[in-house]
Amino acid sequence: MNVNSYLEQVRGKQPLVHHLTNWVTIYDCAQVVKSFGASPVMAHASEEAADMASIASALVLNIGTLTIDFIDSMIQAARAANLKGIPVVLDVCGAGATRLRDEMCFRLMEEAGISVIKGNASEIARIAGENVATKGVDSGTIESDPAVLAADLAVRRNCVVVVTGKEDIVTDGKKCYRVANGHEMMSRVVGTGCMAASAMGTFAAVAPEALPEACAAGLCCFEIAAELAVSDGAGPGSFMHRLHDRVYSLTAGEVDEMQRVEECAVTIS
Amino acid sequence: MNVNSYLEQVRGKQPLVHHLTNWVTIYDCAQVVKSFGASPVMAHASEEAADMASIASALVLNIGTLTIDFIDSMIQAARAANLKGIPVVLDVCGAGATRLRDEMCFRLMEEAGISVIKGNASEIARIAGENVATKGVDSGTIESDPAVLAADLAVRRNCVVVVTGKEDIVTDGKKCYRVANGHEMMSRVVGTGCMAASAMGTFAAVAPEALPEACAAGLCCFEIAAELAVSDGAGPGSFMHRLHDRVYSLTAGEVDEMQRVEECAVTIS
Amino acid sequence: MNVNSYLEQVRGKQPLVHHLTNWVTIYDCAQVVKSFGASPVMAHASEEAADMASIASALVLNIGTLTIDFIDSMIQAARAANLKGIPVVLDVCGAGATRLRDEMCFRLMEEAGISVIKGNASEIARIAGENVATKGVDSGTIESDPAVLAADLAVRRNCVVVVTGKEDIVTDGKKCYRVANGHEMMSRVVGTGCMAASAMGTFAAVAPEALPEACAAGLCCFEIAAELAVSDGAGPGSFMHRLHDRVYSLTAGEVDEMQRVEECAVTIS
Repeated sequence: MNVNSYLEQVRGKQPLVHHLTNWVTIYDCAQVVKSFGASPVMAHASEEAADMASIASALVLNIGTLTIDFIDSMIQAARAANLKGIPVVLDVCGAGATRLRDEMCFRLMEEAGISVIKGNASEIARIAGENVATKGVDSGTIESDPAVLAADLAVRRNCVVVVTGKEDIVTDGKKCYRVANGHEMMSRVVGTGCMAASAMGTFAAVAPEALPEACAAGLCCFEIAAELAVSDGAGPGSFMHRLHDRVYSLTAGEVDEMQRVEECAVTIS
Repeated sequence: MNVNSYLEQVRGKQPLVHHLTNWVTIYDCAQVVKSFGASPVMAHASEEAADMASIASALVLNIGTLTIDFIDSMIQAARAANLKGIPVVLDVCGAGATRLRDEMCFRLMEEAGISVIKGNASEIARIAGENVATKGVDSGTIESDPAVLAADLAVRRNCVVVVTGKEDIVTDGKKCYRVANGHEMMSRVVGTGCMAASAMGTFAAVAPEALPEACAAGLCCFEIAAELAVSDGAGPGSFMHRLHDRVYSLTAGEVDEMQRVEECAVTIS
Repeated sequence: MNVNSYLEQVRGKQPLVHHLTNWVTIYDCAQVVKSFGASPVMAHASEEAADMASIASALVLNIGTLTIDFIDSMIQAARAANLKGIPVVLDVCGAGATRLRDEMCFRLMEEAGISVIKGNASEIARIAGENVATKGVDSGTIESDPAVLAADLAVRRNCVVVVTGKEDIVTDGKKCYRVANGHEMMSRVVGTGCMAASAMGTFAAVAPEALPEACAAGLCCFEIAAELAVSDGAGPGSFMHRLHDRVYSLTAGEVDEMQRVEECAVTIS
């Protein structure tokens, strides 16, 4: 897979990436889009969410600090995106932790078209119907194979499913990619999961016709930047700003040398 | 113009600067006020927005993540500020991107007294009545001369208008200043525009009788700190924390040596 | 007092710490919990606040950007925590600045069980019934002895009271600890007060039966990290990321060498 071709397109087209996201990591979600050379915007009022989605090239939804009103705005934005063929990435942040989160994820998927569902292992397992628990927004342990859960869910929901973890899985049920980039430090830093969804949205914006590839490329570039940020020094505070620096300065040479994306077989249960 | 005299007053008086601002850059808006030596406060509940504005020395409004309720609170806060003669800075963030943003900006200007309107070129053009589009919160291109638009709008609205860009324009329609400080990196970092409004609010707080000068001085100091932050190293992540460091440590000598503020002719169309 | 034993428990048990906090410093509150090795979660919808509190080991409430709805959710979360015996830390951020803040603090204390009340000198004085003013969220000056106010309030409210300042006071009215760690730079950086409450919540989570000690230990560790962060270099921007780094890398040796916690006499007026 030619990861660099997607990165070049992001930097060349500078797409507008609309977010309805959580209040914890909203700055870092916006900045990672900007660091990649694109334009972030965050707008959640029900009176404008659809209008803003209509002028964007991708929509990223994250339920981290959800309320019912906020979900209503997400549905309006997603439907507007659907009408224009704009990809919609849904981060099912905290699914499996409370009933509200589960219900709202299902409601979003019923009432609007979701192009990409993204979560950690226990979040995706919960959305796939498993009886698992998420520890707040940190993954719990699951017994099923996340690759199988992801492929099943992708087929059932007719979308791309992304499971993040030590190795990430990206599949639409027909094709599957494993992204082995990234670093353990990411799990020590609040926001890296949310930023991964924003990175995927940014890449999906320039290649809506090739979503699994675009998402894998976005994850890969983001996680290479994370590896480079870790190599610059230690600590979760320093890591975050170095991550933005490294996303911004990421070169084709770094991507070529460090990318660990592999196509793999799809296993449906 | 004696930029340093305003900086000294900010550090000496440590004014309380009240904000109703967006959730994306709220931390950096608060911290830039604090880095200048003043006291930031953020309070948006309709039950207290006016009370908090009444004990502050300036009010900064930013519609970045607006809702109708939030605008209602802004109006209450602005009216309380008006009664006390406290300057009100309005950042028309994203004007020209959606109808809601345009309408709410006009509503704010109709229902309360705004002392300073601040935006990028396409935002100010839209508020001045031009038919232009803003790309989310990033400026679109405009055909008119922003200095003329700003002066016209300042006269019509009886306030100071600030257009940020490569060169910033600050005018009340009678006097006009151009601030040529700043660095291209600022456009790569989420929040620099919002922080510029907070910097102006902080300086307006100590010189409400000389608003164009105070705003120009605030912008100038903020942008000198940005130039110094860029010179410390590269990357949008590192830049942000160095920017706070440089605002905090800014010296009279740096301001004298680096300031590029010029008074210029006002052109009304 | 064995500060390190609490730090070890935090790192070993990795408790889930639920927050309903303000939008200004929410990222840093989450990250400080994560930097200590625990799991933060932020969830404020009335439909899930109680559910999330029920699976957590501590609840941190901060009224920095309160609304009435938000306070309602806090009460639901706190009552759920009360039922499970989970400690509830309340940061009375900005008490003394507006009537709403005072009223909502009293309402929270009337309608739910609060385990730890934390504030700066004028905030605690206001909650203790003194007629003092807080400058936004920065402490005003008070005439009473904060140690006496704290002990009185602790007895009256049957909880732990923490007054932060140059020296912090932690008392339940029977025992009292003074924490002399920390650095003046903390007062120049937005969020250090909120993060201190999150640090105390994180430590309270692992020792709910020894709250004064756990809170003193949490404050002490956080403030030692702040001292180390200051020694790494200057400026409020750099300080914040170094603070996260230093919380993350804090060693038992650093704690042993630097801790300045002393038990002291309780003085009831």
